[in-house]
Amino acid sequence: MPSFITLTTDFGASGPYVASVKGVILGVNPHAVIVDISHDVPPQGIEHAAFLLESVAPHFPPGTIHVAVADPGVGTSRRGISVRTSAAVYIGPDNGVLSAALPEEMRAQLAAAGPAAVGGGCDARSLENAAFHRRPVNATFHGRDIFAPVAAHLALGVPFEDVGPPLAEIVALPQFAATPLAGGALAGRILYVDRFGNLVTNVRQSQVPGPEIITEAGGRTIPGLARTYGENVGLVALIGSAGYLEIAVPGGDAARELGLSAGDPVMVRPLRA
Amino acid sequence: MPSFITLTTDFGASGPYVASVKGVILGVNPHAVIVDISHDVPPQGIEHAAFLLESVAPHFPPGTIHVAVADPGVGTSRRGISVRTSAAVYIGPDNGVLSAALPEEMRAQLAAAGPAAVGGGCDARSLENAAFHRRPVNATFHGRDIFAPVAAHLALGVPFEDVGPPLAEIVALPQFAATPLAGGALAGRILYVDRFGNLVTNVRQSQVPGPEIITEAGGRTIPGLARTYGENVGLVALIGSAGYLEIAVPGGDAARELGLSAGDPVMVRPLRA
Amino acid sequence: MPSFITLTTDFGASGPYVASVKGVILGVNPHAVIVDISHDVPPQGIEHAAFLLESVAPHFPPGTIHVAVADPGVGTSRRGISVRTSAAVYIGPDNGVLSAALPEEMRAQLAAAGPAAVGGGCDARSLENAAFHRRPVNATFHGRDIFAPVAAHLALGVPFEDVGPPLAEIVALPQFAATPLAGGALAGRILYVDRFGNLVTNVRQSQVPGPEIITEAGGRTIPGLARTYGENVGLVALIGSAGYLEIAVPGGDAARELGLSAGDPVMVRPLRA
Repeated sequence: MPSFITLTTDFGASGPYVASVKGVILGVNPHAVIVDISHDVPPQGIEHAAFLLESVAPHFPPGTIHVAVADPGVGTSRRGISVRTSAAVYIGPDNGVLSAALPEEMRAQLAAAGPAAVGGGCDARSLENAAFHRRPVNATFHGRDIFAPVAAHLALGVPFEDVGPPLAEIVALPQFAATPLAGGALAGRILYVDRFGNLVTNVRQSQVPGPEIITEAGGRTIPGLARTYGENVGLVALIGSAGYLEIAVPGGDAARELGLSAGDPVMVRPLRA
Repeated sequence: MPSFITLTTDFGASGPYVASVKGVILGVNPHAVIVDISHDVPPQGIEHAAFLLESVAPHFPPGTIHVAVADPGVGTSRRGISVRTSAAVYIGPDNGVLSAALPEEMRAQLAAAGPAAVGGGCDARSLENAAFHRRPVNATFHGRDIFAPVAAHLALGVPFEDVGPPLAEIVALPQFAATPLAGGALAGRILYVDRFGNLVTNVRQSQVPGPEIITEAGGRTIPGLARTYGENVGLVALIGSAGYLEIAVPGGDAARELGLSAGDPVMVRPLRA
Repeated sequence: MPSFITLTTDFGASGPYVASVKGVILGVNPHAVIVDISHDVPPQGIEHAAFLLESVAPHFPPGTIHVAVADPGVGTSRRGISVRTSAAVYIGPDNGVLSAALPEEMRAQLAAAGPAAVGGGCDARSLENAAFHRRPVNATFHGRDIFAPVAAHLALGVPFEDVGPPLAEIVALPQFAATPLAGGALAGRILYVDRFGNLVTNVRQSQVPGPEIITEAGGRTIPGLARTYGENVGLVALIGSAGYLEIAVPGGDAARELGLSAGDPVMVRPLRA
């Protein structure tokens, strides 16, 4: 069974940074199989990278190592960390980008306001063991000089405990979820706009009571839930493939039609309030 | 010999969809080698994807499995199919995107008007065996939940016959070819604009009588055929690497200079009519 | 140990060209591991590709084969070459794109004006042995028909000497370096703009006397050297991860803020001249 290492970064796929990371990984572990998740995370887009990783990681084989770098604090005192779960290992800066590594119930306890330190029940290490770093470490490129070689060493079988001391707390983003309001309404926002212009919201499938809803976004009102893109015309709301409420215009572009982008608000109301 | 699985989609390389497909494939078959053809097919661009696959597939090792997804009908009654040829296996929706899997003579018989159902002499299956699907199948993402796991199982050695019942007919696009006119002229159109602004037309090499031609496009007239990009200045016509007549401005950008894009008409006439 | 083949081209990642190259490589050598460096080199951007290769190649395992194609002269009399160093093998057109294969001291001797033929001390071959080419060779696509199969054969273990006759001279770009001026100043230019808008200059780390400098670019003056992106606000100069002076706006975009792009001048002066 090969060792899989995925990469999620804001480096851009066409510059020297991604390829340098891959070269370092293969130099340490020539048998690692590297899979790109995305290198087009918006610069320093921590939440965007965290969302991608949360969406994609469950589909990878057990033991996959996920490296994520959206790292405005590179070279400062922010820590580099690794987090182990029963399904995978996550490596990156301690700024919330690895939130997918945390149990849902832990993130659900965080206030919706923003990233915060959480602990207990999470198997995290601080990447302080320089034996697994490239030397010298460049202060602007921990992706190449710390995260890549640590990932490659773990993929070689280096014990997780060897990468550095345990951490009681790491920084996490709140769970992606809409805020419940009085009367059964849900106040959400757009998490991600895909290539088709579909608007993925933070309204979780488990929060949606069923098809008896009205979705409001960009001044438009969408009754009910469609089952797929192909069966309707015009604006529809549906549960998308990542398990969140999605707004789409089949054959069209909902983001353009509604003039909406990531961060914009969405409201879901019961059809008969 | 590794098993190769290629991917041609309109998902966009930087979102969660491509990586999810790869994760599912590797979860079923950790030894599959995945090769990206393109993820920048225009949304629902069936002909564009079919052209890419036709251009690229002949260069891959025998037995390669090609997955192509440009799928406006996902979740509706359109079928998912697999087609086997002596050289490769193709997997995707039954909407013409897999036309490269069909013998040229079969596609040559189709009227130029558009996709149509063809049959006989093509080894196709309907992907109805849910044992090879991810469960549950999301109605918006058959790429991840049906095509990817079926491809990975075939790459593992699952018999082709096991994916579902045989099909008498599948949907195909007409052969890419110009329409012969009286007097030896050829009425063609632009199939594809490459990154250099070269205009790849549907005028097949076999339709071009030789260098004694005039190519007309965007109000300009180009006499003769160049052998390569480097030997001429200004606008040239030549037989490109995919075997179609191509219009180029070496060192420049023919698409921009002529104001042309995919779908625009091109005319080829004998030099001395 | 797998054989690694990297690709640096101006083909664009989403067209048929890159995938065709990969198919040809895997057809010859199914066990080759292919790594993309970039396919977004500006069309015919020889210097850009040479810079990427120089930045990235040192991070790959010994014996890696680097294929680079930015090739305005394809199909003309320009040669296809392969160059072997103690660390790697380079394959591409003889136009300077493989300059990273040359010893630094050899390139340092070239005048700053532009590419020139250099020789002696470089183990280069002309790719004239058609046994390792695809047949027929298309005059517009040596990447697919010559460079790819030669790379795949070398990765299979074909002796380097077999690809063609030795060359006394190959074309090289001058070393990337600023021009020293009277009074300790350095006249440089911008080599590369990364995805964050950071401006990578040709001022080498070894040319920078230390933090007691002033960097001038785009009408702005930047005193001193920062250690990393995270510790400053506003415009900073620092030594970047590729070993060149870099101008950045942490959390911002220096290229946009200064209105600068590749080729624009940069001046470095001693703080107390």
